Amino acid sequence: MEPLDLLVVAPHPDDAEISVGGIIALSVRQKMRVGVLDLTTGEPTPHGSLQKRSEESSAATEILQLTWRENLQLPNRSVVPDLEARRRLAEVFRNVRPATILAPYWQDAHPDHVAASQLCDDARFWSKLSRSDLDGDPFWPPRLFHYFSIHLRIQPPPSFVVDVSSVIEQRMQAVTAYHSQLIEGRSQEFPTVVDDIRDRLRYWGWTIGTAYGEPLLNREAIGITSLSSLI
Amino acid sequence: MEPLDLLVVAPHPDDAEISVGGIIALSVRQKMRVGVLDLTTGEPTPHGSLQKRSEESSAATEILQLTWRENLQLPNRSVVPDLEARRRLAEVFRNVRPATILAPYWQDAHPDHVAASQLCDDARFWSKLSRSDLDGDPFWPPRLFHYFSIHLRIQPPPSFVVDVSSVIEQRMQAVTAYHSQLIEGRSQEFPTVVDDIRDRLRYWGWTIGTAYGEPLLNREAIGITSLSSLI
Amino acid sequence: MEPLDLLVVAPHPDDAEISVGGIIALSVRQKMRVGVLDLTTGEPTPHGSLQKRSEESSAATEILQLTWRENLQLPNRSVVPDLEARRRLAEVFRNVRPATILAPYWQDAHPDHVAASQLCDDARFWSKLSRSDLDGDPFWPPRLFHYFSIHLRIQPPPSFVVDVSSVIEQRMQAVTAYHSQLIEGRSQEFPTVVDDIRDRLRYWGWTIGTAYGEPLLNREAIGITSLSSLI
Amino acid sequence: MEPLDLLVVAPHPDDAEISVGGIIALSVRQKMRVGVLDLTTGEPTPHGSLQKRSEESSAATEILQLTWRENLQLPNRSVVPDLEARRRLAEVFRNVRPATILAPYWQDAHPDHVAASQLCDDARFWSKLSRSDLDGDPFWPPRLFHYFSIHLRIQPPPSFVVDVSSVIEQRMQAVTAYHSQLIEGRSQEFPTVVDDIRDRLRYWGWTIGTAYGEPLLNREAIGITSLSSLI
Amino acid sequence: MEPLDLLVVAPHPDDAEISVGGIIALSVRQKMRVGVLDLTTGEPTPHGSLQKRSEESSAATEILQLTWRENLQLPNRSVVPDLEARRRLAEVFRNVRPATILAPYWQDAHPDHVAASQLCDDARFWSKLSRSDLDGDPFWPPRLFHYFSIHLRIQPPPSFVVDVSSVIEQRMQAVTAYHSQLIEGRSQEFPTVVDDIRDRLRYWGWTIGTAYGEPLLNREAIGITSLSSLI
Amino acid sequence: MEPLDLLVVAPHPDDAEISVGGIIALSVRQKMRVGVLDLTTGEPTPHGSLQKRSEESSAATEILQLTWRENLQLPNRSVVPDLEARRRLAEVFRNVRPATILAPYWQDAHPDHVAASQLCDDARFWSKLSRSDLDGDPFWPPRLFHYFSIHLRIQPPPSFVVDVSSVIEQRMQAVTAYHSQLIEGRSQEFPTVVDDIRDRLRYWGWTIGTAYGEPLLNREAIGITSLSSLI
Repeated sequence: MEPLDLLVVAPHPDDAEISVGGIIALSVRQKMRVGVLDLTTGEPTPHGSLQKRSEESSAATEILQLTWRENLQLPNRSVVPDLEARRRLAEVFRNVRPATILAPYWQDAHPDHVAASQLCDDARFWSKLSRSDLDGDPFWPPRLFHYFSIHLRIQPPPSFVVDVSSVIEQRMQAVTAYHSQLIEGRSQEFPTVVDDIRDRLRYWGWTIGTAYGEPLLNREAIGITSLSSLI
Repeated sequence: MEPLDLLVVAPHPDDAEISVGGIIALSVRQKMRVGVLDLTTGEPTPHGSLQKRSEESSAATEILQLTWRENLQLPNRSVVPDLEARRRLAEVFRNVRPATILAPYWQDAHPDHVAASQLCDDARFWSKLSRSDLDGDPFWPPRLFHYFSIHLRIQPPPSFVVDVSSVIEQRMQAVTAYHSQLIEGRSQEFPTVVDDIRDRLRYWGWTIGTAYGEPLLNREAIGITSLSSLI
Repeated sequence: MEPLDLLVVAPHPDDAEISVGGIIALSVRQKMRVGVLDLTTGEPTPHGSLQKRSEESSAATEILQLTWRENLQLPNRSVVPDLEARRRLAEVFRNVRPATILAPYWQDAHPDHVAASQLCDDARFWSKLSRSDLDGDPFWPPRLFHYFSIHLRIQPPPSFVVDVSSVIEQRMQAVTAYHSQLIEGRSQEFPTVVDDIRDRLRYWGWTIGTAYGEPLLNREAIGITSLSSLI
Repeated sequence: MEPLDLLVVAPHPDDAEISVGGIIALSVRQKMRVGVLDLTTGEPTPHGSLQKRSEESSAATEILQLTWRENLQLPNRSVVPDLEARRRLAEVFRNVRPATILAPYWQDAHPDHVAASQLCDDARFWSKLSRSDLDGDPFWPPRLFHYFSIHLRIQPPPSFVVDVSSVIEQRMQAVTAYHSQLIEGRSQEFPTVVDDIRDRLRYWGWTIGTAYGEPLLNREAIGITSLSSLI
Repeated sequence: MEPLDLLVVAPHPDDAEISVGGIIALSVRQKMRVGVLDLTTGEPTPHGSLQKRSEESSAATEILQLTWRENLQLPNRSVVPDLEARRRLAEVFRNVRPATILAPYWQDAHPDHVAASQLCDDARFWSKLSRSDLDGDPFWPPRLFHYFSIHLRIQPPPSFVVDVSSVIEQRMQAVTAYHSQLIEGRSQEFPTVVDDIRDRLRYWGWTIGTAYGEPLLNREAIGITSLSSLI
Repeated sequence: MEPLDLLVVAPHPDDAEISVGGIIALSVRQKMRVGVLDLTTGEPTPHGSLQKRSEESSAATEILQLTWRENLQLPNRSVVPDLEARRRLAEVFRNVRPATILAPYWQDAHPDHVAASQLCDDARFWSKLSRSDLDGDPFWPPRLFHYFSIHLRIQPPPSFVVDVSSVIEQRMQAVTAYHSQLIEGRSQEFPTVVDDIRDRLRYWGWTIGTAYGEPLLNREAIGITSLSSLI
């Protein structure tokens, strides 16, 4: 297939939408080819089911107009960063050849997220291997940034913030598509889970002088070719 | 006079309200004696005047039910941390004998704020001097925390966050009392200056699992006597 | 059983006493229900035996007047953060339902401590799962702090320090109960291992203006409801 | 005059060239209007003179094809961040109306650099004042980044690095134009002062995967409108 | 055997040379006994073979005049920090009894390096165990520093930098001995991989005022007995 | 005069002894020439007088066997980092030509300490100036480290810790020589001010595996020429 410009690796269906739905929507508008790989089905959950979750994810995919979305079918709640999971993820990378990977942050109270973060690094490395029995051709995804869908109330200092003001309605619709996860059985009192998501985007928007923003972290230095590329 | 439990030192009338209006309102409700010392009149400004600003400040004082408020009459826009300003501030500390001082953060694009931050430290030290010609008796304000009313879009990692959800309406009224500073001549498009203030409180509220919060910084370690004092 | 207010998860019997014996004793005095879960027997060691260590641990438990103490019987020196250990720890959390967990710090030269730290996070997450085959009812331990019983000579900047001056004798007795670990075969020259433990508490006490203190780390922001809860 | 896109504020003639000569040359090639304001003559120095330094600076200005360069004539070695210096710098900002200011870093063993750094912040603030007796119209320079021309062997973690590989020869020529400062009377043994300058650019180039780079620091978050603007 | 003064643990043959070849050469000149333990063969790679890599490693060993070098034969690209690998590494530590271990940094895009870093800590701890079935006598390697051979373009702030100017030619020869890894099939355009290695040493040399330097990290405080031991 | 190996710049007589008395005593034993420059008399204080303080300082000088000690006679409590104070301090540096300067840390609740810290940097720079009207010949003190005699309960992460176990009694005698400052009128309950000083040294000693240590900070990287120079 034609390579992706952007691939979000999400432990569960809804993590990509919650944290970088705006970057996804914006990139699609900017004519990038954008994909999401969910590592697990995310089920069971208190109010979800395999079918509900799948429908919700399809709806969100539609809203965001994703180029590509698949599910790696790793065991929900029991993701382990072993060699077999590494292999399967590396083979996806070789297949979709993403210019940029967005991976979960490495510190999290949810063990699936911690494992997913490590797997992204490990599989990215394996993806480039020659002389291996991995499917596909060697490919090194040139950029890997971390996003914040964290089960702790922390948001580390980001490397940069993307202005997503122009797509805020669309990206919040993609969030609320996950009714079984974020609305059903949740407190309807202000601030709801959805309020929290939106208002965090407000905070990051303020940091760059816009209405809404999404933060990303790069362990390496940010390189630019002109001062004019900054807000 | 009877000592204050809390004294907020503000470079200009409105800085205390913008950044720690909730902590003020909450402390008043908790029967603390709370004061604000504005260092300057804050005027001239594009849409203010000495009279307007004074009326706005009086209105905010009323809304927050402050125990005490005065103005040190340092030169607006030209606050300099010299020995004379230090003396005058130290004498206020000796007079109101605050258990806790809230001071501006030391990094800021507004030189009055940088100077005010240094003056708080310097005057706190002078306040305790014996064998001096300062008015009043020696007094060491035991605690000094920094608040964030910063003319840069930064909010440093705080030492703790105070839950101000119960007083949010009251503290936002105290903010909007400064019509000439925060509303008049400002964009009425979302996000307005007032939206930015409220939504930052939302972010800090989220970090502690409440609706609204205000961050404070202590350069020293936070000491507690029981785990039950934390949210 | 009635839920615990505080549960210390310790890789080996003596880690809880060495690092947070004062917080334990203080919390017991404050009428909290306090437990310790040792993950392993801690044996073999150069001067210990299963029986000696068990007697020492019983003595310390008595000194601290713990409400509850159990041993998870994971393999000493070979603790691995796998799904089975996670399951067993999660089931303990569901049983004792702690309001606060104290977990080992994640960076350590002792692999059991690194593994124990990760297990606390992982099991805390599993503890809340519905629709699982775990024993007990879903329960989310609302607070998890990290303590410093580290086999490196580091003590990271803590989030807060608890004043344990009032229980210092008691908490040092709980430490010296582990004669086989901390005294037998150790240098009796100043500074002994016990001197080191006590004198580190002095340092942290100094940071908050008291005689003795114990530091704790919270990855999330500290939330308070009143400035008066701080020392 | 037509506003500048970029203004470098340099304590002495050669600081701009040493630290951000590449960003200057690159921005000029990208059709930006670029200026340098030297705060002092930089003289006396061991091997320089007012005339030599002025000729060297003119040569460098020519090499970099600067749009604008002036000298504020503050006292060399004795720059003090007082209100008068603040006024004079603010009036320059109002005159050249720079979209971006590059200011010296605030920590330095050279007191002129520390003072210059503070003056940039202070004068930027005054520049926007209405109802003042400052020359020119109110103007707020929207961006201020810090560059590293530091008399300590430190280079703090930058916010981003600009690829200056395409202008490396040109920017090194601008450096060596300052013969009296960087070559005359200096050791000709490897590594010379000029070697040190070039090789630091190599290090920062490596961090972004290019040959040469120049680091800049932004105290605020970096905002972007598309992931494609990053290297 | 007689104990080693210094043991470098390298995930693959060439990591020791790339990152701390100068420290090795310098220590040998200072009459220390220096060893390298490669954890894997490092093969396959695009341009290498078991035989080529082995010959290259022998050549580098010769150039650096190592006292001791062995290969642990863990699976290249698939190093996992499990108990069996820990055992094997601990038994090496008991055998060579190093006064100082140099271990890979713990954050890396190459999973072998991350695993190797953890293994060094884990095996160091096991090495000291009494009452175990490990080969050899209990031994605690007193110092463990981290070096930077990282597959990310980062070099964390080091604890100290070693001046390697006097051995720079020798240590670069040891690097270029790995022709199949660093030269063959690589771009010959400036900056080559070898240029990058040498120029990073220049940067660290500059930070301590010398021509070339190599950075090391100690998680614990650096202890000295006299100020005269510093450059 | 013959150059000093080490010069401690102290805001008041007792700061040098409180914070680096051990480094002083140790360096004297190691045959270094060590001096202290007190910037002010330190008087008035609640229990001191010019005569008492001078006698105490002389006693401490005797105990530490200092090579050189003088007092710059800047105004106590009112030290300001102006050009005149800079000149006077620079002339001392030119006179005693110290290989290493120990300066106060730059963050402090005592304004004299903040000013003294800046003066050390500023005067060190002026000290090297040629073509100036300063007394003495140009001299650049090659090393400047910061020590911690801070009026906040903070001790920042140091660059290194010096083992002062062998001189602990001597250095504590030098501290208690300041009877009017540290003992008279102070609480005699444990922990006294002197207990706090000694026990902080214990903490830093622990961090390097010795009985007592004193921390120093270097803003630049620590350079060494052999791993064997570290504890």
